[in-house]
Amino acid sequence: MKSTMSRVALSVSEIFSHGELLFPDSKIFTYTSEGTHVLSYGEVAKRARQLANGLVALGVKHHDRVATFCFNHNQHLEAYLAIPSMGAVLHTLNVRLFADQLQFIIDDASDKVIIADNIVLPLLLKCLIGRESVETILVVGSYDEALVEGFRTENNSSVTFIEYDSYISKFSEDFEYVEVEDENDAAAMCYTSGTTGNPKGVVYSHRSTYLHSLAASSSASLGLNSADRALVIVPMFHANAWGIPYAGWFVGSDMIMPGRFLQAAPLAAMITELRPTIASGVPVIWNDLLHYTEANPTDLSSLRIISAGGSAVPRALIEAYRDRYGLTLLQGWGMTETSPLCTLAIPPDNVAEEDRIKYLMTAGRPVAGVEIRIVDAEGQKLPNDGESMGEIQVSGPWITNSYFKGVNPGAFDGKWLRTGDMGTLDPEGYLRITDRTKDVIKSGGEWISSVELENAIMAHPDVFEAAVVGVPDDKWDERPLACVVLKQGSNVSAADLSNFILSQVAKWWLPERWSFVEEIPKTSVGKFDKKVLRNLYSEDKLHVHHV
Amino acid sequence: MKSTMSRVALSVSEIFSHGELLFPDSKIFTYTSEGTHVLSYGEVAKRARQLANGLVALGVKHHDRVATFCFNHNQHLEAYLAIPSMGAVLHTLNVRLFADQLQFIIDDASDKVIIADNIVLPLLLKCLIGRESVETILVVGSYDEALVEGFRTENNSSVTFIEYDSYISKFSEDFEYVEVEDENDAAAMCYTSGTTGNPKGVVYSHRSTYLHSLAASSSASLGLNSADRALVIVPMFHANAWGIPYAGWFVGSDMIMPGRFLQAAPLAAMITELRPTIASGVPVIWNDLLHYTEANPTDLSSLRIISAGGSAVPRALIEAYRDRYGLTLLQGWGMTETSPLCTLAIPPDNVAEEDRIKYLMTAGRPVAGVEIRIVDAEGQKLPNDGESMGEIQVSGPWITNSYFKGVNPGAFDGKWLRTGDMGTLDPEGYLRITDRTKDVIKSGGEWISSVELENAIMAHPDVFEAAVVGVPDDKWDERPLACVVLKQGSNVSAADLSNFILSQVAKWWLPERWSFVEEIPKTSVGKFDKKVLRNLYSEDKLHVHHV
Repeated sequence: MKSTMSRVALSVSEIFSHGELLFPDSKIFTYTSEGTHVLSYGEVAKRARQLANGLVALGVKHHDRVATFCFNHNQHLEAYLAIPSMGAVLHTLNVRLFADQLQFIIDDASDKVIIADNIVLPLLLKCLIGRESVETILVVGSYDEALVEGFRTENNSSVTFIEYDSYISKFSEDFEYVEVEDENDAAAMCYTSGTTGNPKGVVYSHRSTYLHSLAASSSASLGLNSADRALVIVPMFHANAWGIPYAGWFVGSDMIMPGRFLQAAPLAAMITELRPTIASGVPVIWNDLLHYTEANPTDLSSLRIISAGGSAVPRALIEAYRDRYGLTLLQGWGMTETSPLCTLAIPPDNVAEEDRIKYLMTAGRPVAGVEIRIVDAEGQKLPNDGESMGEIQVSGPWITNSYFKGVNPGAFDGKWLRTGDMGTLDPEGYLRITDRTKDVIKSGGEWISSVELENAIMAHPDVFEAAVVGVPDDKWDERPLACVVLKQGSNVSAADLSNFILSQVAKWWLPERWSFVEEIPKTSVGKFDKKVLRNLYSEDKLHVHHV
Repeated sequence: MKSTMSRVALSVSEIFSHGELLFPDSKIFTYTSEGTHVLSYGEVAKRARQLANGLVALGVKHHDRVATFCFNHNQHLEAYLAIPSMGAVLHTLNVRLFADQLQFIIDDASDKVIIADNIVLPLLLKCLIGRESVETILVVGSYDEALVEGFRTENNSSVTFIEYDSYISKFSEDFEYVEVEDENDAAAMCYTSGTTGNPKGVVYSHRSTYLHSLAASSSASLGLNSADRALVIVPMFHANAWGIPYAGWFVGSDMIMPGRFLQAAPLAAMITELRPTIASGVPVIWNDLLHYTEANPTDLSSLRIISAGGSAVPRALIEAYRDRYGLTLLQGWGMTETSPLCTLAIPPDNVAEEDRIKYLMTAGRPVAGVEIRIVDAEGQKLPNDGESMGEIQVSGPWITNSYFKGVNPGAFDGKWLRTGDMGTLDPEGYLRITDRTKDVIKSGGEWISSVELENAIMAHPDVFEAAVVGVPDDKWDERPLACVVLKQGSNVSAADLSNFILSQVAKWWLPERWSFVEEIPKTSVGKFDKKVLRNLYSEDKLHVHHV
């Protein structure tokens, strides 16, 4: 028996038009080197329609890929709104990738137009030679015409370069959205920045984007609303900035776009000046900001929540924000493959104040729509007992069930995405990430969680950052190596740190190998790059203390 | 280009399992003649699974209709959760319908099992003779076996009667949900209680129920969440109690189910005792409660919002709750055909306190997902100028695009539902309902809004209720007749009232005919039954004053 309900498609253009209709006066702030630009939703919407008309004039058709190579700013948001609404596919390119990865991705996606920031234009030019699909670059900001002309003549390139703002200003502010026939059609795509193999394309649909936006604005999750002002630190080229731009637009939240000013000092200035109510970023950003505010008192009182994801948040960091600023640092967990929102570490209601930390320390519970299971090495579901550790698998309407062009089919088990993360689920539904499958340390046939060791070490007041990796060991096959960045002026020893963590982890987990380093290498999206640490160790480039 | 996202179906079982997993300790309170019963979500979920097993044992299969004939209580919620999750179709029967309408509806839907309250069993028995599809009645509460046996022998009926609670207690608490293959499959159905013609079936899908639940819990709409306790006054047999049971369960809200205790005194007692944060009901309920609290001071301070829909809310009522209790009476608009949430009268942020009433007086703005347009008699879209009046048409994923068995196809124009309501849309997106198409008064070729006249009259402090209908007039074709219920002890005259409204409406709108009545007749869902008033007038049964 079928329902009588309308089969009208869920679409990005509905997000676009709804936000504009209800919240024409909400604000988009963009930080630039020339100061802060402010535009209303109404103005951004008009510019987005001008962009759509401008892209049509460049020959962009239904399903064509239009890439962005940008930091967070109003133009990037205009691309988010315009490109899917005109029936094309928004492809966000990560400005922190290596040239060879970018070349592969541009070819794989067959990008026709690329909207690129002037500041990263030199990097883009390095990638452009041989990219046959690319016809036009729309450059955000002023750029050196001579540089571009030099590139064109040197490489006999037919790619056209046009300045974004002046180009779109020529076009009409009216645009008829393309009716989406199938809500499963592509709206946007993003490549995973895996550390092994070629990047893999994840293609978001109109349906998944719409549902994810509803999920992110639910009162049961982030509760974004029109009284919010969101500081969007997570790059829009990385998993759609966790969906905040679309979810925020849908409910009329002001948004602050920090451009490329992602260091602690300018972020602190934005928070003081523009008083955001919510901010989202990876843990290293919050760690940097915390240390900055120690030396430079900053008013964080406008924030009702700061959210973190992408890697585990150390307990010490959550406690520091709580104790110094009365501020909840809310962990979430997800990935490019999951749009990305899967879980949020919201404690249950009515939990005693001193018990909240127990829940805040987890990766959180599934948001409505997401199913999670833990699976052993044979693919059997493990009990939700908070102890059985296995691979985390997820399913839901905004979680990918394949990769673009069908690569890597082994990442899926029926409706389930095999995430490559290891963890446990407890009876209350809280997920704990114990490790990446490739980072977990196999010592004498038992598993040691690198993440738990890192958290234990980072709880020491003299430690700025710490990463733990598995290294070969003759007796135990693998043993942990702790790489530690100390705060300036500290002379804590490896033995001190080992003693410090003794009460927190099993004795047999204690690392025998410690290395004090200047900084922890990071991936393009700000995660610890453990592959680099393992390589440094194997090449004998780390100074290692034995305890 | 297709997306790579999972095609996993949206389903009611996802709502069911998500609420149980995350919020096992949230509470369902049920008022009964023997006191208040309290069950946790965990207990309700187990009982719902027992019900599912019990229904399977009664032969209920995929797509079979299982009806309810109940007030609001935990058993009704169990039916909401269990029936769609087992792949059957929940059919809510309105206990206030006439027997002949019920007979038509039961036959039309081919209900196999009916879950019915003991208190309405005599009414149900009147309808059962000749209903060939019905095999079993599950009776909620104790009932007179002799009555039932008498019915069976007298009518040679093979219908089985079983007591609900003791029946389900025999079954397992485990149940494997049916995987929904097509999210457009029927999950529930409800018949419109139109005052003309046969009732028409509206069939909700798993998809529409899921999306509607997300919409109702969005921070941009009611913002239901796990800290809420919802007093569900709107009957669950009427447009799914505005979706609160599903939306509330999805986010873990406590719910208070008032059973058949819908009068002002018991509602005031529930509010005092159980301290709900949100409550939803038709305007007459709020009018009754307001007058009750005048004589019986009641603590309403737990409420953050009270919502009203089903008919226009008089300005005086909104102002009274605001001024006496600091409480927002939030109007919404929708209908059985629309699941029902279409609009909510939430004022924009940053509106001056004195301007809020302007927005609260409207029917509201579309919630995310709903599109609205105003159309003239020729079907042409009118401008959103706040002045052009025409038929309100709506479209969206939880709005019906046909009726069950394809009846009344004229109610649809492509993706648009022709609502039969007249109104205007302003540039900010706020909808004003001026009338039902069948209630608007056509006087000398011009339209007079019966609703605006009613609001003007009800603003008078001596008026309890007022309804305005069009009556035949030799000179103008049709003129307004005002039917007024005065508060006890008042001796206000028709001339006084006419003078009072003179400043609020056009002079040519002023009714020449006034009638003071004991009460305004109401439909089964609590709306003014204007057909009855028109009939009373035509049969000369009203005492009419001419002004």
